[in-house]
Amino acid sequence: MKTAVERLMDLLPEQDGCAALITSGKNRRYLTGFPSSAGMVLVTKQGAWFMTDFRYFEAAQLKIKDCNVLMYTRAAETLQQLFREQNITTVYLEYSALTLAEADDLENTCKSAGVQAVKDGTLDTILRTLRIVKTPQEIQKIRDAQAITDASFEYILGKIHPGVTEREIALDLEFFMRRNGAEGVAFELIVVSGANGSQCHGVPSEKKIESGDFVTMDIGALLDGYHSDMTRTVAVGEVTEDQRRVYQTVLDAQLAALAAAKPGAVCSSVDKAARDIIEKDYPGTFGHSTGHGVGVEIHEWPRFAASDSTTLLPGMVVTVEPGIYLAGRFGVRIEDMIAVTESGTENLTHSPKELIIL
Amino acid sequence: MKTAVERLMDLLPEQDGCAALITSGKNRRYLTGFPSSAGMVLVTKQGAWFMTDFRYFEAAQLKIKDCNVLMYTRAAETLQQLFREQNITTVYLEYSALTLAEADDLENTCKSAGVQAVKDGTLDTILRTLRIVKTPQEIQKIRDAQAITDASFEYILGKIHPGVTEREIALDLEFFMRRNGAEGVAFELIVVSGANGSQCHGVPSEKKIESGDFVTMDIGALLDGYHSDMTRTVAVGEVTEDQRRVYQTVLDAQLAALAAAKPGAVCSSVDKAARDIIEKDYPGTFGHSTGHGVGVEIHEWPRFAASDSTTLLPGMVVTVEPGIYLAGRFGVRIEDMIAVTESGTENLTHSPKELIIL
Repeated sequence: MKTAVERLMDLLPEQDGCAALITSGKNRRYLTGFPSSAGMVLVTKQGAWFMTDFRYFEAAQLKIKDCNVLMYTRAAETLQQLFREQNITTVYLEYSALTLAEADDLENTCKSAGVQAVKDGTLDTILRTLRIVKTPQEIQKIRDAQAITDASFEYILGKIHPGVTEREIALDLEFFMRRNGAEGVAFELIVVSGANGSQCHGVPSEKKIESGDFVTMDIGALLDGYHSDMTRTVAVGEVTEDQRRVYQTVLDAQLAALAAAKPGAVCSSVDKAARDIIEKDYPGTFGHSTGHGVGVEIHEWPRFAASDSTTLLPGMVVTVEPGIYLAGRFGVRIEDMIAVTESGTENLTHSPKELIIL
Repeated sequence: MKTAVERLMDLLPEQDGCAALITSGKNRRYLTGFPSSAGMVLVTKQGAWFMTDFRYFEAAQLKIKDCNVLMYTRAAETLQQLFREQNITTVYLEYSALTLAEADDLENTCKSAGVQAVKDGTLDTILRTLRIVKTPQEIQKIRDAQAITDASFEYILGKIHPGVTEREIALDLEFFMRRNGAEGVAFELIVVSGANGSQCHGVPSEKKIESGDFVTMDIGALLDGYHSDMTRTVAVGEVTEDQRRVYQTVLDAQLAALAAAKPGAVCSSVDKAARDIIEKDYPGTFGHSTGHGVGVEIHEWPRFAASDSTTLLPGMVVTVEPGIYLAGRFGVRIEDMIAVTESGTENLTHSPKELIIL
C-alpha cells in the first residue's frame, strides 16, 4: 500500500506548480510518522520535503523515509527557496488547523515569493479523504493502543469497590496506561457513577462509589500518535431488575449496530440499527450519535449519525457506543472500536461486555 | 480591584455599537473563571454575556457573577439575537486563537446580522494588556499551583537514586501532583540526567540515573486554570569540581536576575543580569531567554529576553531560569517564579536551591 505522502501526491490537483503545505503538528505527524513541535511538510506531484529546526533534524533524517529532510534557521527563507527551486506558484494551506495569525504569516511568506496561498478548505478535503481510510500500519497502532486500554480495564476491576472515588479510579486507570507504555491518555478519561452516570460526558468527581451504582468508564490510550476508545459500564453490589433491563437494551443496541456495520453500509444505517432498539423501550434517552472515526484524532470521520451518509470502506476505524441516560438515576454506555475489513469488520476491543457485578 | 470583564470593558474602543467576542477556551476561562468546552463571551462597554449549551448552563449560572448567562441551542442564532438587542455593529474577534474555518463561520454569522467582524489583532492586543498584569486572586492561584510543585519536589528527592529512569521520575512527579489536587501538569514535565541534561527541552527517556549525574527537573502543576513552573538540578552520588563550578555559576546568575527584577526595571535588563555572569565563564552555553510570563498559559508575556523592552509592573508573574548546557557532558538550570509587587518581588517558589547531593 502507498504511504500517506504518496497518496497525498496522487490527490493533489493536476495543476502545474501547485503544492500542499502542511504545518499542523497532527497532520505533519500523520504524513511522516515523526512527532515534533516545529516543522512543515511541502508536497508536490514530484516530491515531498520535511523541514524542521536543529532540535529535530537529526532524528527526522533517521526516521522519515519518503520526504527530503531539510533543516532551517529561518523557516520562511527555507520555504521560499524551496518555492523557487521547485517552480511553485500555488500553495494550499490547512483551513481547519491554521489560526488567522499563522495563516497571515504564511500568506505573507508566499506573497513575497510570488506564490499564491489558497486557504479555502481544498487541502482539508484532501487530507480528510486520506485520513478517513487507515493503512494496515495505522490500524496496528490503534490495535496496540486498544490492547493497553483493555489491560487497564482488567486491572481496574480489582480496584473498584464502595468508598473509592470516581477521580481515584480515573487517575488509577491513567497511571496504569502510562506505566504500561502509553504516550498519554487519548482524552480526559470519564469515570461516572450512580446518578452522575446520566451525564454522558461527566467529569470524574470526588463522589464515592456506592453499592448499587453503575460505574461507566470511557477510556483510551494514546500510542505512537494513535488513539483508542472504549466504554464499559460495570455494577457494584446489588443490581435492580430495572438496571439489568437498561444494560441489556444498550448491549442489544450495540450488537445490532456492530452487525449492521460492514463494507458498503451507509453510516446512518448503523446509527439507526442501535437507535431503533433504544427508542422502542427508552425513547429520548440516547442523546448522542452512535459512533465516530478514530485515528490521529480521537474524533474524526466518519460518524455513525443520522446525518452521515458516508459509505463504510475497508480501513475505516469507528466506535460503536450507544447509551441510555436516565436523568437523576443512572446511565449505561457500551463502546467498542471496529476496523472495517474487505469482508466485514474486526472488533479491536477485547474486554468483556456481559454485565460484570463487582 | 476590577474584574477581568470590567477591565476589558474599560479597554474596548470608544465606538458606538462595538463589542469583543471571546470564543477560545483559554480566554473564556480567563474572563469568567469558568471552564467549559463550549461557549462564547460577548463584552460591550455596557454589559457582558456568557453563552453556553445545556451541559454547562446551570453550573455557569452559579459560578459566573459578572456576565449575564444565556443558554443556546444554536449558538449563531443566540449571538445574532444579542447583536440586535444590544445594537451591535462591530465585533472584534480573536486573531491568534481562531482558526480560518472558525473565523469564516463567525464572520458569516456577523455578516448575516449586518455586523462587521474585525480580525486584525486589535482584541488580542487588548487581551494581552489585561492578562500581562495579574490580579491578587490570579497570583493566589499561581501560588497554590506552585505549592503543589514544591511539595512534589520534596517528595521526589526520596525517589531519585541510581537505577531509576528519567521517565519513572517524571511519571512519579506527575502522579504526585495530580493525587495532591492538581488539575494536571502545566506542561510535559522535563526530567533529564547526565549527558541528556545538555538538551534544555529534552524528553524524559528510559535512561537510568547513574552516580555522578546531574538530574534536571523542569516541573509545574496546573490548578484552577493557572500554571506554575520551576526547575531544580540535583546531583546523585559524586560531584566533580567542574560540576560544582557550573552549578554555582548558574545559581549566581539566577540570584543576579532575581535582584535585577523589580517594578520599573526593563525586562531585557533582567536577562542581561543573568547572561553577563554566564557569558563571562561559560560563553555560548546559555541558549535561551532568562524567563517568561506565566498565567492561564504556561508561556505568556513578558519575556526576560534581550528583545523585550517591557517595563516590569506590579502584578506581572515571570520565571527566572538561566542555565548552562555543555553538549555531551551535562547541564544545569535553576528556575523560580516571581510576582512583581509594589515594592519589589515575591518569590513564589520555596524549594531549596543550594546544591543537593543525593
